[in-house]
Amino acid sequence: MRSQRIAVIGGVASGTAAAAEARRVDSEAEIVLFERGEYISYGACEIPLFLAGIVKEAEQLIAFTPDRFENERGVATRVRVNVDHIDPRSGRLDYTQLENGQRGSEHFDKFVLATGARARVPDLEGTDAGNVFAIRELSHAIALEHYVRTHELHHAVVIGGGFVGIEIAEALVHRGIRVSMLQPRPGPLHAHVEDEMSRLVQRVLESGGVMVRNDRFAGLECSNQGIVSAVHTQSRELIGCQLVILAMGITPNTTLGVSAGIKTGNSGGYRVDEGMRTNLANVWACGDCTEVERIIDRKPILSPLSLTAFKTGRTAGRNAARRGSGKPSRYKGVVGAQGLKIFDSEIAYVGLTSREAVAAGFSARTVTIKHRTKAALVPGSDAIHVTLVFETSRGRLLGGQLIGGVGTVLRGDMLIPLIRAGATVADLYEQDLIYSPPFSPRLDPLLVAAGKAMKSLSDL
Amino acid sequence: MRSQRIAVIGGVASGTAAAAEARRVDSEAEIVLFERGEYISYGACEIPLFLAGIVKEAEQLIAFTPDRFENERGVATRVRVNVDHIDPRSGRLDYTQLENGQRGSEHFDKFVLATGARARVPDLEGTDAGNVFAIRELSHAIALEHYVRTHELHHAVVIGGGFVGIEIAEALVHRGIRVSMLQPRPGPLHAHVEDEMSRLVQRVLESGGVMVRNDRFAGLECSNQGIVSAVHTQSRELIGCQLVILAMGITPNTTLGVSAGIKTGNSGGYRVDEGMRTNLANVWACGDCTEVERIIDRKPILSPLSLTAFKTGRTAGRNAARRGSGKPSRYKGVVGAQGLKIFDSEIAYVGLTSREAVAAGFSARTVTIKHRTKAALVPGSDAIHVTLVFETSRGRLLGGQLIGGVGTVLRGDMLIPLIRAGATVADLYEQDLIYSPPFSPRLDPLLVAAGKAMKSLSDL
Repeated sequence: MRSQRIAVIGGVASGTAAAAEARRVDSEAEIVLFERGEYISYGACEIPLFLAGIVKEAEQLIAFTPDRFENERGVATRVRVNVDHIDPRSGRLDYTQLENGQRGSEHFDKFVLATGARARVPDLEGTDAGNVFAIRELSHAIALEHYVRTHELHHAVVIGGGFVGIEIAEALVHRGIRVSMLQPRPGPLHAHVEDEMSRLVQRVLESGGVMVRNDRFAGLECSNQGIVSAVHTQSRELIGCQLVILAMGITPNTTLGVSAGIKTGNSGGYRVDEGMRTNLANVWACGDCTEVERIIDRKPILSPLSLTAFKTGRTAGRNAARRGSGKPSRYKGVVGAQGLKIFDSEIAYVGLTSREAVAAGFSARTVTIKHRTKAALVPGSDAIHVTLVFETSRGRLLGGQLIGGVGTVLRGDMLIPLIRAGATVADLYEQDLIYSPPFSPRLDPLLVAAGKAMKSLSDL
Repeated sequence: MRSQRIAVIGGVASGTAAAAEARRVDSEAEIVLFERGEYISYGACEIPLFLAGIVKEAEQLIAFTPDRFENERGVATRVRVNVDHIDPRSGRLDYTQLENGQRGSEHFDKFVLATGARARVPDLEGTDAGNVFAIRELSHAIALEHYVRTHELHHAVVIGGGFVGIEIAEALVHRGIRVSMLQPRPGPLHAHVEDEMSRLVQRVLESGGVMVRNDRFAGLECSNQGIVSAVHTQSRELIGCQLVILAMGITPNTTLGVSAGIKTGNSGGYRVDEGMRTNLANVWACGDCTEVERIIDRKPILSPLSLTAFKTGRTAGRNAARRGSGKPSRYKGVVGAQGLKIFDSEIAYVGLTSREAVAAGFSARTVTIKHRTKAALVPGSDAIHVTLVFETSRGRLLGGQLIGGVGTVLRGDMLIPLIRAGATVADLYEQDLIYSPPFSPRLDPLLVAAGKAMKSLSDL
């Protein structure tokens, strides 16, 4: 059997996971990793630490340089190379070397698409100004960090109160910059949490020094030096600033595949089977450009998270590399869980919000409790709010949102196996969670929330 | 229907939970709570905080005084009253008022036994000396704390390296006392963790300043003032000291019930059904004197923990009070999970050890990994060791033990729903646990351990 050639397109989290796994499965294959940018294999989730100045050098975020990846993982690694077109049926791949504009064409047997996602940027004047940044890749972070270090900045406006907007806002506050955030009511993280929780997130940001304006973005005011000097809001306010961060969400990069006949789903990501294979037999996809199944209702969704990228990458790489022998890998999907630290608070959201639950056809309700992270007598005991989302007839747990002090995000994790297994709020209440004063009140906040949920069902 | 009379015997965690729940179910019943000691409704788990001087007043550990419990919960509360005998068939209860030795006898329709457990004290000379303490109740803690405050103590010996011995040893170190612990190899917590973990626990204690001697207790050396001056060990060493703590385990208090014909199981605790009812139709039992089912193998065990006491108490109280109507309550048992903080480290153990698994008839193996509590770049990222115990043929998760920095015990909690549901190590590996640098490395230590367990199974 002649050795096979596998092209992995995209070299951050899922691409490097796919290439390394393909190598493990087939030691003979020729595996080529293409990356448009300069860097591969970096921790995108650690970018806020770098922007905040907690991590001093961008290089500390990099797990493998292209050379080390090539030498240690046995994967030919080509950076600053754009893949312009693929034709999986004939096996042709066309590329351009971005350094010199040189084009080339090669033949591959198999393709793994790991092209990630890009920041959504509205088609408005000023979005390309020198002091407007959308942070998605390490190179963007390096540019922003350099700009912050070399300019006198008093006030920054972050447009968008999602995960990324929040993390960058906090990082800028760490750098001593006054920060306003533009985010309509009810408040930040609105897409992921109930309205009440969203308002709590807003309070956490405000108490950390971020001024949240519950208003909509309407445009940028450019000075004559090609620099944005202010942000327009829908309610006709003008917010003067020296820096603008666009954190308005992301879009999967699928142009390459779509032009080659690869199908996308309603989410906008590549549609794949359990083995991460697309509609073309020799093309796999993984990471932020790809749909995964939401386990609760089997809906295909985007899950642009590091762990999803890593696991779908490994599955795609393994299945692309195997040639009939060896166990195929299946990726079973996500509950969907995210956590972040905002100043001294922790936030976690897991599974569905009540809005998502209703949209998915569930009859759902919520309860919210306020309790403590540790026994009240213990130093460092802090407030925690827990919201549970559950199905009305049987009490099936559909989601949870938590905000509070140390120990909040790991409590969010605890809900994942339960939601994944289809457990009810009564099942949650029965868990004999550890009680020890330094770690929880006698009844853990999750148990208190479960008890309240059970009561709300029996009151029906 | 005439109103019923319910006697609840024992007034700490499970007794007060039972009495309060009985009142909720039957607002007409006459409910009497008997407590031998002076205090009811206190947090036994918070005793180490008081001994360490972190909580200044013993009263802060008390949730309800007898008066408040009587007034706010509507339960006649009699402290310093010993129940000498019950005859459930005739309904007779004999008691002695400890203040004045006065005896009495009353009739009750139903009995709830919540008599707890006592510290095991060997039958040796010197165990009743003034500087020898076994800490089980709040009154013992008050006596020890007073002794520590009023005597010049340089060196204390803690006999026994279980949960209680460890907590008291740390508390005494906090008070500036040099502490030695007598605990045979492999080391502390040996009954609950693998040998390797036990050695790690010993290292944590030693790095906190507790000198652990891997030797056996052989006796006490009494001075002529009725004070113990040294501890003898099996290897014929003599450890001079001014204070001795006996932390040699506990025994359920079942004499009262046994003499009334109530059956105990192999564990030594009262044998009960799912509704916490004993073999006598009008007697329920709950808390540390009672067996509960270990869910993994349905074995009846003792689970002398606050949450078990609270939940079995509520179940016993509800079922005792209901008269045909209302939903009966069932207590479904425990996975068995405990956590504690030792100096700057956290320890958790959940489910079965490999020894317990083998004894329960499982073919079991273990894996251990060392990883980090947070992303390495984040300040406060710390080491964590995770051991998983799992069944050899199918990989069913049977237990886990964790030791490490902040975030270790809550990770132990995460194993509980999985073990409870019969999940495998592969199921654990599939959980999409939250990744965010302040809370975990990209692959959570639990996932890394699950991956290693899967590999160990596929290598078979």
